[in-house]
Amino acid sequence: MKPRLKHVADHAGVSQATVSRVLNDRPGVAEPTRLAVLQALSQLGYEHGRLRPARRTGLVGLIVPELDNPVFPRFAQALESRLAREGLTTVLCTSTPAGMGEADYLEVLQDHAVTGIVLISGEHADTTADHQRYHDLRAGGLPLVLVNGRDEDLGDIAAVTVDHAEVTRLAVAHLASLGHRRIGLALGPSRYVTAARLRLGYLDGMARAGLVVDPALMTDTIYGIEGGHAAGAALLPLGVTAVVCASDRMALGVIRAAREQGLEVPADLSVMGFDDAGPNNFMDPPLTSVQQPFESMGSAIVQLLTAQITDAGAATPELTFRPELVVRSSTGPAAETAAPSETDTGTDDVTTASEPGTRTG
Amino acid sequence: MKPRLKHVADHAGVSQATVSRVLNDRPGVAEPTRLAVLQALSQLGYEHGRLRPARRTGLVGLIVPELDNPVFPRFAQALESRLAREGLTTVLCTSTPAGMGEADYLEVLQDHAVTGIVLISGEHADTTADHQRYHDLRAGGLPLVLVNGRDEDLGDIAAVTVDHAEVTRLAVAHLASLGHRRIGLALGPSRYVTAARLRLGYLDGMARAGLVVDPALMTDTIYGIEGGHAAGAALLPLGVTAVVCASDRMALGVIRAAREQGLEVPADLSVMGFDDAGPNNFMDPPLTSVQQPFESMGSAIVQLLTAQITDAGAATPELTFRPELVVRSSTGPAAETAAPSETDTGTDDVTTASEPGTRTG
Repeated sequence: MKPRLKHVADHAGVSQATVSRVLNDRPGVAEPTRLAVLQALSQLGYEHGRLRPARRTGLVGLIVPELDNPVFPRFAQALESRLAREGLTTVLCTSTPAGMGEADYLEVLQDHAVTGIVLISGEHADTTADHQRYHDLRAGGLPLVLVNGRDEDLGDIAAVTVDHAEVTRLAVAHLASLGHRRIGLALGPSRYVTAARLRLGYLDGMARAGLVVDPALMTDTIYGIEGGHAAGAALLPLGVTAVVCASDRMALGVIRAAREQGLEVPADLSVMGFDDAGPNNFMDPPLTSVQQPFESMGSAIVQLLTAQITDAGAATPELTFRPELVVRSSTGPAAETAAPSETDTGTDDVTTASEPGTRTG
Repeated sequence: MKPRLKHVADHAGVSQATVSRVLNDRPGVAEPTRLAVLQALSQLGYEHGRLRPARRTGLVGLIVPELDNPVFPRFAQALESRLAREGLTTVLCTSTPAGMGEADYLEVLQDHAVTGIVLISGEHADTTADHQRYHDLRAGGLPLVLVNGRDEDLGDIAAVTVDHAEVTRLAVAHLASLGHRRIGLALGPSRYVTAARLRLGYLDGMARAGLVVDPALMTDTIYGIEGGHAAGAALLPLGVTAVVCASDRMALGVIRAAREQGLEVPADLSVMGFDDAGPNNFMDPPLTSVQQPFESMGSAIVQLLTAQITDAGAATPELTFRPELVVRSSTGPAAETAAPSETDTGTDDVTTASEPGTRTG
């Protein structure tokens, strides 16, 4: 990051000469103006007195909903090193039900004059949440990037997301190519835009594979192993031969539910996860999943953030990243379906998708 | 937390009347004194103007070396909610080789006037590191708690640790009870006090089981799956029938190395992990491990920290927590040893330890 007098001047709303006078402790600058310049320097990540990146003063708040799901530590790790190279220090905040909420952390971070904020899978993706505070943050000029799910009313705020519809499209195409027709879907709470996008991709994938959709096979539950277990217990009696899950931990719960009923994975049931952040290749069985491109997304998040830091009026597109199918051993050829009520009247000629972007892990 | 005028006064080195005058914006307080009181209020977690816990201003820095190993997210989660109940906000800092180091974060956190700092598995456990900065922090009155490994020269700083010697003692007793005699040990880098303690417990456990120690079976490597893989590749030709690892991820690496040589776990090789922070019961095979008591340790860390916040001269003991053996399926009866050079001349009467504190997970 090279010194940029102009950016500081623009940010503070003063001339470059004024910035220079403040930096050199010259007289002739009114106190409010001097403070505005110092604030601009701080917000832009420069230390007063030497116009170079202030490795030790620029803070970026990273708010995640939990750390149990390895997807969040993985994002944090991808962001931390990249932000450090920009002279920015990451402070990771976990908004838990038992502790501080997202709104609490946003206030704390503002109190500490952070240079910017990154929100991953937060209330910005919750269609029932009040989003006024995000608009207030942007109006106040605080650089902000929303990750994985931006509700429609936040269209003017920078966002980075994996293509959730593509996640389930890839998953259904993979399962259909293995002969599965009754494919269950285990989603998180429906109030999140991500759940809607995953459902859309599932429906699209089923249509492309020429499969009839049974609405009973699309279940909303909670994230985590317990949610997956509940979804598995609900879906198995409906004769599914495969289940697509909205997270790897949900997939572990479905596998547990299947084994409790004496079923084997993948012989009797294929199970797919999503995220692929943890050691899925060491699971029993190694878990087929759809991976978020953490490193590319991390780079984009940092770019969108630093663009806003150097130019408060920077454009704020939503950048969408393509996920990748990682085939391991929790999916296999469809078992003979034992559906108690066979409602699938679709063609028997299952489309064998070409599955671009597939790799084995 | 109830209002405590006395603590603020003691902390600032002024009278309670002075604190009261500052709080009520009364005249008659010199500016340096007023600033000292405000600083004391901030450090104690109170907001100026209302003597109650300042949920939104007290920050606690939590520095961890990485987030890949789920032990660190697990600690972070255990601490975050407990600190929030004390009116303290956690900022999680990951000191990575590619990003900011521990020393960098310590400076940043001080710049932001944190109320206290918790260090987990940091350089305080590294016997070759310069520890002067910890003494400087304490001398400056900053509440500090060191977690898992306190080098000898830090004896006056509060610390919470799992009993590492007991970890390997439990592991060896478990394996000896299954008939294992050639038991390998895969440690992290030897410069950490934790490695020395784990080695000590291993030696003690072998002695208690009446087993002869072959020094070649104690290997130093790096943490993580790759380190475990290297240790496994080194130990397997030496005829081990079991390996005790310094982390669960190292155990996964040992299992991978065993399979590459056509061995089955646990039929041909028993493998034990340590930490038990992740979903070990979903691994292939479900991993026998020794669990850190995260919740109890989290409570103790918060207690030691808040004790220092309310009383800068609080006693600073090292609290040691007993780990717990969790038996799953990666350990089993000893296979026939195929040692190329049988150096074990110990008794055949293997002590069957009673293994208190064992549970199955």
